[in-house]
Amino acid sequence: MADGFVAACHGVILRAVPTARILDITHLVPAGDVRRAATVLAQTVPALPPAAVHLAVVDPGVGTARRALALRAAHGWLVGPDNGLLIAAADRLGGIVAAVVLPVAPDVPATFHGRDVFAPAAAALLGGRALPDLGEPCDPAILVRLPPAYARLGPAGGLDAEVVLVDGFGNVQLAAEGGCLAEAGLVPGTRALLRRLPAGRTPRTGPAPSTSGQRLSEAGRLVAVGTTFGSVPSGEVLVYVDAAAMVAIAVRDGDAASRLALVPGDRLALRPLDPPDL
Amino acid sequence: MADGFVAACHGVILRAVPTARILDITHLVPAGDVRRAATVLAQTVPALPPAAVHLAVVDPGVGTARRALALRAAHGWLVGPDNGLLIAAADRLGGIVAAVVLPVAPDVPATFHGRDVFAPAAAALLGGRALPDLGEPCDPAILVRLPPAYARLGPAGGLDAEVVLVDGFGNVQLAAEGGCLAEAGLVPGTRALLRRLPAGRTPRTGPAPSTSGQRLSEAGRLVAVGTTFGSVPSGEVLVYVDAAAMVAIAVRDGDAASRLALVPGDRLALRPLDPPDL
Amino acid sequence: MADGFVAACHGVILRAVPTARILDITHLVPAGDVRRAATVLAQTVPALPPAAVHLAVVDPGVGTARRALALRAAHGWLVGPDNGLLIAAADRLGGIVAAVVLPVAPDVPATFHGRDVFAPAAAALLGGRALPDLGEPCDPAILVRLPPAYARLGPAGGLDAEVVLVDGFGNVQLAAEGGCLAEAGLVPGTRALLRRLPAGRTPRTGPAPSTSGQRLSEAGRLVAVGTTFGSVPSGEVLVYVDAAAMVAIAVRDGDAASRLALVPGDRLALRPLDPPDL
Repeated sequence: MADGFVAACHGVILRAVPTARILDITHLVPAGDVRRAATVLAQTVPALPPAAVHLAVVDPGVGTARRALALRAAHGWLVGPDNGLLIAAADRLGGIVAAVVLPVAPDVPATFHGRDVFAPAAAALLGGRALPDLGEPCDPAILVRLPPAYARLGPAGGLDAEVVLVDGFGNVQLAAEGGCLAEAGLVPGTRALLRRLPAGRTPRTGPAPSTSGQRLSEAGRLVAVGTTFGSVPSGEVLVYVDAAAMVAIAVRDGDAASRLALVPGDRLALRPLDPPDL
Repeated sequence: MADGFVAACHGVILRAVPTARILDITHLVPAGDVRRAATVLAQTVPALPPAAVHLAVVDPGVGTARRALALRAAHGWLVGPDNGLLIAAADRLGGIVAAVVLPVAPDVPATFHGRDVFAPAAAALLGGRALPDLGEPCDPAILVRLPPAYARLGPAGGLDAEVVLVDGFGNVQLAAEGGCLAEAGLVPGTRALLRRLPAGRTPRTGPAPSTSGQRLSEAGRLVAVGTTFGSVPSGEVLVYVDAAAMVAIAVRDGDAASRLALVPGDRLALRPLDPPDL
Repeated sequence: MADGFVAACHGVILRAVPTARILDITHLVPAGDVRRAATVLAQTVPALPPAAVHLAVVDPGVGTARRALALRAAHGWLVGPDNGLLIAAADRLGGIVAAVVLPVAPDVPATFHGRDVFAPAAAALLGGRALPDLGEPCDPAILVRLPPAYARLGPAGGLDAEVVLVDGFGNVQLAAEGGCLAEAGLVPGTRALLRRLPAGRTPRTGPAPSTSGQRLSEAGRLVAVGTTFGSVPSGEVLVYVDAAAMVAIAVRDGDAASRLALVPGDRLALRPLDPPDL
C-alpha cells in the first residue's frame, strides 16, 4: 500500500501494548473481496502462534449499519467486521466460543474502523482485557456468514467445484477438500478432463471475473492428476492436493490462473478418464 | 520492492540496536514523489508510538549537495533528506525543536544514504545518543519546505483545492482540512457540483499526472456530500471528511481516482447546490 | 503477496521460537528467478545482523528430487533449496563451513517446503539446535551452483558484462565489481560508449527477457561515467559504482531499465572514449 493505513493500525496497537508482536498476513487482497480474504485467513491461522488475536479488515460496509465484532474461538481471538470474514478462520481455530459487538463511538471517523475500532479492540485483548468488557454479547448463530462455495461430487465420478483462491504463483485452489480427489476417482498418475462450467449463481463478494479469459473452454482439456509439481513436465497442467489440503490446479513452472484464464468464482468440472483412454 | 534496500536499512538499525522495534509505514510511494511521501508521513505519525524515531527517505537529490537531516520535534525525532519530506510530519509532532545536518563521510557510497547515512543516524538516536552529537546544528527556519498545496474557499461559497493523495482504495484526498466543507457551504445530505479546474502552477515534486484522464470534465458532475460511504448507494461519488480529517472524494465500493481520472496535482472545484435545484 | 504463505512461514518460526526477530528481505523476486534472488540475498546479508539464520525460498524444483539444505557459514546460517540460491550469500558470510541435507518427511505436502521444511529448520537453528542435528552431512563441494554471470575486461580497455539485477528504481547492475571500472579505463568525468551485445549463452534461471526492448541498440550511445546521480543532469544516463560496489547504469531521476529496455541476462559493452573525442 502506498498509504499509511496499515502502519496506523500497527501504531495504535503498539501505543497500547508496546511489547505486542505483530505478524502481517497480507494487505493485497483486492478491495472488498471478503470471500478471498476469509479463505486466506482461514488457511493461514493454523500456522500462526496459538492464542493470538487475529485482526482482519476487508470492510466494504464501513460506514453502514454492519456490526463490528470481537470473537473468542477455542484457540484464539478474532476482531473484524460482521460480514462473514472471520467465520471460516474461527472454525479452524476450534469454533466460536463467544462473540461481542464492539461499540462505535459517535466521534469516530466513519471510514477507518481498522484504526479507530478494530485495532483498539485487538490491543485491548492483547493487553489482557476480557472479551465481555469490549462490547455487548451477541449470539454467534446470528453472525453474517458467506454462502458456501460451490463443490459437489458427480454421480458417476468426477468433481464440480468453484475456484476460491489464486495464490501469488497463479496456482488455482478449488472449493473441494483434498479427500474429494480420491472420492471423485481422480487418481495420481492418471489423466482427467478439466472443463469450464457455465457461470454459477454463487453470490459474489469481490470483483467481477475477467470476461476475456476463455482459454479453458467448456469443451475442456486433458490434465494430469499428480501429487506435486514434479509429477508433470515443465509447462504442463496438474491437478493435485495443495498445502492447505484443498484440490488445486497448477502449471509447473507457470501460472495456471493466467494460462487458463481462471478467477475466483469460476466453476470447473473434473472428470476421470479410464486409463485405457490415455 | 524486489531489491533488498529496505531490509538493509532494517539490518543496519538492528545491528546497532538489537532490541529496536521497527514499524514500516510504506515503501510504495512512487520514486521521487516527495510531496506524496510527506503527506502520508504527516498523516500517519499521529497514530504511531510516541517518542519514536521516524526515518523517511524519498531522495531524488542523493548524491547532490542536498543536506541530510536529523530533527527533534516536540514528540519524536525525524531523520531524512532536506527536501521538504519531514516538515509536515514535524509539525504534526509538535513542531521542530532542534535540527542538525548529518555529516556524510567521504567513503560512503553516494547513492544509498538510507543505509549509509540515515539508518545509522536513526539507530544512534534509538540507542540514546543526543541529537547534537549527530551533526552540526542548523536553523530550522532555513530547511527546505515544499510549496503549500493549493486550496481556497470561493468568495460565494464552494471550495477549490488540489488533489494531494490517492490511497490504496482509490479515495482522493484534497488539500483542504475537513472544516472547510462547512465553511464552503457543503452540507452532508445535499449535492454539489464537482468539476476539474485547468492545471495549476504548483511546482510538482513527483511523476507527471496522466493526461488521458478526462472523465471528470471541466463541465463537472453532481456528487453527494455525506459523512461516510454508507451515505450513498454503491457506485456513487461522495464528498466527505476522511479519517485524516481532510476533504476527500470516494466512490462507494469503487475507485474514485480511476473513475474520475484524478491524480495528485489535479485541481478541483466543489460548489454547493441549493436544495431546491435537486 | 495476496496469499498467506509468508505469514505461515513467520508463524511456524514464532510458534517454535516466540522471541525470534524476523526481518523480511523481499517477497517480490519474480517466481522461479533463482539468480536474481541469489544476487539480492548476497548483497543484503552484509547489512543484516551477525549470526543470523537466513531463510530463502525460490524453489521451482519443489516436489522434485532437488535437495533441501541448511548451511553453516563463517558468519551465519542459511536454509533453502539446493539450487544455487544460497551460495553467493554464503560466500559473503565468510564461506560454507558445513552443510546438511534436510530430511523431508513423507507426510509433508510436496508443494510448500517453505512452511513445512525450511521454516522449521530455521526455527530449530534459531532455537539453538546444532546443524548436524538437522540432517545428513553433505560435502559443500557438490552443492548446485549457478553458472557465473558473464563479465570480462576488453583487451584494449572497456568492459563487457551481463545485467544481473534491476532494482526498484530501475537502476541496472552489471556482473562486474566496481574495481573493473578503473581497470577498463572508465574514469569518472569522462564519457563512454554503451552498447548492447548479441544475446549470450548464459543459462537463464528466470523469466525470458522482454524482446520488445531495443531502445539501446548495438550501435550504442554515449553515456557519462560518474560517481553518483549528481554527476549528471536530470534525465541523463550514468555509469557508476553502486552501493553494492558493483558497476551499474542509472538514469538520474529516471528508470534506466525501462528507458534502455534492459533486463537481467542482457549483455552490454562499455568502451572508454578519449577525452579529445568529447
